[in-house]
Amino acid sequence: MKRRIRKVRRLLASRKIDALLVSHLPNIRYLTGFTSSNAYLVVTASGRSVFLTDGRYIEAAQRQVEADAVELIEKDGLKSIADALKGHGVRRLGFESEHVSHARAVKLIEMLGARKCKAVSGVVESVRAVKEPEEVAAIRKAVRLAEGAFRHVVPLLRPGVRERDIAVELEFYFMASGGDKAAFDPLVAFGPHSSVPHHSTGRRRLRETDVVLIDWGVQVGGYSSDLTRTLLPPRMPRRTKAVYQVVLEAQGAALERVRPGTRLSAPDKAARQVMEAASYGRHFTHSLGHGLGLEVHEQPGLTRGAEGTLRAGMVVTVEPGIYPPGQFGVRIEDDVLVTAGGHEVLSRLPKRARSWG
Amino acid sequence: MKRRIRKVRRLLASRKIDALLVSHLPNIRYLTGFTSSNAYLVVTASGRSVFLTDGRYIEAAQRQVEADAVELIEKDGLKSIADALKGHGVRRLGFESEHVSHARAVKLIEMLGARKCKAVSGVVESVRAVKEPEEVAAIRKAVRLAEGAFRHVVPLLRPGVRERDIAVELEFYFMASGGDKAAFDPLVAFGPHSSVPHHSTGRRRLRETDVVLIDWGVQVGGYSSDLTRTLLPPRMPRRTKAVYQVVLEAQGAALERVRPGTRLSAPDKAARQVMEAASYGRHFTHSLGHGLGLEVHEQPGLTRGAEGTLRAGMVVTVEPGIYPPGQFGVRIEDDVLVTAGGHEVLSRLPKRARSWG
Repeated sequence: MKRRIRKVRRLLASRKIDALLVSHLPNIRYLTGFTSSNAYLVVTASGRSVFLTDGRYIEAAQRQVEADAVELIEKDGLKSIADALKGHGVRRLGFESEHVSHARAVKLIEMLGARKCKAVSGVVESVRAVKEPEEVAAIRKAVRLAEGAFRHVVPLLRPGVRERDIAVELEFYFMASGGDKAAFDPLVAFGPHSSVPHHSTGRRRLRETDVVLIDWGVQVGGYSSDLTRTLLPPRMPRRTKAVYQVVLEAQGAALERVRPGTRLSAPDKAARQVMEAASYGRHFTHSLGHGLGLEVHEQPGLTRGAEGTLRAGMVVTVEPGIYPPGQFGVRIEDDVLVTAGGHEVLSRLPKRARSWG
Repeated sequence: MKRRIRKVRRLLASRKIDALLVSHLPNIRYLTGFTSSNAYLVVTASGRSVFLTDGRYIEAAQRQVEADAVELIEKDGLKSIADALKGHGVRRLGFESEHVSHARAVKLIEMLGARKCKAVSGVVESVRAVKEPEEVAAIRKAVRLAEGAFRHVVPLLRPGVRERDIAVELEFYFMASGGDKAAFDPLVAFGPHSSVPHHSTGRRRLRETDVVLIDWGVQVGGYSSDLTRTLLPPRMPRRTKAVYQVVLEAQGAALERVRPGTRLSAPDKAARQVMEAASYGRHFTHSLGHGLGLEVHEQPGLTRGAEGTLRAGMVVTVEPGIYPPGQFGVRIEDDVLVTAGGHEVLSRLPKRARSWG
């Protein structure tokens, strides 16, 4: 944890601040190992760090948090922060502009003065984007558990079963096998529901002609997996299978671009080119992927407009999809580690076109 | 849903705005019935409303959302909002200052001009604080399911069982009995763990001398319950039992103050007076309660400093607790509806001191 705080401290000067007020809870968890629903961490250029939390957590924080000082947030959190800064000689405090509400930022600026505050973004996130080996190990474990859950539910896909039944079985498996919990509500979509990329799992019963799309993940030790597989109906209709092959090919093209030094936008572009060549480009209505770690969506985003480059140690999802409206959808999603020499696909579930029946 | 939008519209003039940009997702769900992870709703004084969401949800939104217009959020969401406002003659747009990040607010102000934007807070929340009959019915259902889950796990409390086993059983029950999911991670705390109000459920095994504190809730149809019960060790040590009685008496004193027209701070004060009289005031380290509905914590807060008064239709938790550090903790939490004539405790699980063994 101390090492992580040092990494953040080294970035302060480049942002022209001599302290950072960390308010985004996953960032605080990353830097302290402590989970709560109300906390702040101040990292100063001198290296000292102050952790603040309220009465519900203070006792546990005093035992567990490695910060140089652990202080109680009094009724007005911002007042406590101002007090904690006294004596640290902070001239310019950065605050996480994307993770502080406008209302709180206005109060902070009123309290400290506009000259003493600076909106910054992505400081801790840029450190988090490159995973440490223990983080990769945690994600690997989350991927393994998710794969086990999928293998557990495939035999349950029989005509008449409801989407919800499958979602419940996934969650049962997560919990019984040592996962913390589902990383997000599992998405189970049958037939035309699969054409809605963020369908809400419901009571539809599986029919012989349905595509089955499952997007699921599990959290273990705070780290998540996020996978999607699409299974075809038993008779494997020619058009559905053709769309599946295009998505699979698009994913392959994207994966080829996942290596250190490549632009973050390149894998998305590669997938889109494959789909456009097959005239399905307009049905790929979301981005290719996102970083994965303590949050299910984190840096880096693999989007069309993303700036920056891939770096070894990043973990991203690669998840192209094609969704002809009202008909069916196909998405294939894997979790991928960027390695020094290229990438490693962490998820090993088979991807060739297969049916659930 | 149209009625709810009308209620919000009526509040615009008092905030000196002629349109409100709703960005808080539970507020959007409340006003449209639609759940997504990325949406905006603009409610205008003329009564027209525009719903914006991205490509993943647009198809479903076009079918399900009752707004006057449903538009696609293009890459930059704020640009789409500016476009959607054209032709509506909006002179002053309120934005939800507590639910928009500082970064987004700054962009919005840049785009529309500072004179056209106004930070507001609590507009939709004040409407949501008073529940409609169907919302109360949904909360009642969530309370019933939570009670069933508790009855299911009490017989499993035997020496050697782990906190986590009980949490898993609670979740199994929620899902098997038709709940959407746990309203929050169930908190199961044995022995000294119960003295940490927000303990993280772990692997401790139950011992003969342990207090058992369980804080749990289930979500059904979007609405949540939130309950806590504390069970004493089989031999019911005199001091533990005495603390239990103080908490129970404090809760009773607080409940007496729950009726329309009472100050929001009054129930907390009443509970604190009972504890202080018994010299336990300093061990009541959190607030008395909070509103409950689409969010587990919503308006109104029943805190020491809360301003405003209780109104019929509000649903709140009443949850005093005493936590002698490192020893044990006792909390009793019920969900309570404010009625025209006083209040109705929605949760019926017994509260007299009893042991788990």
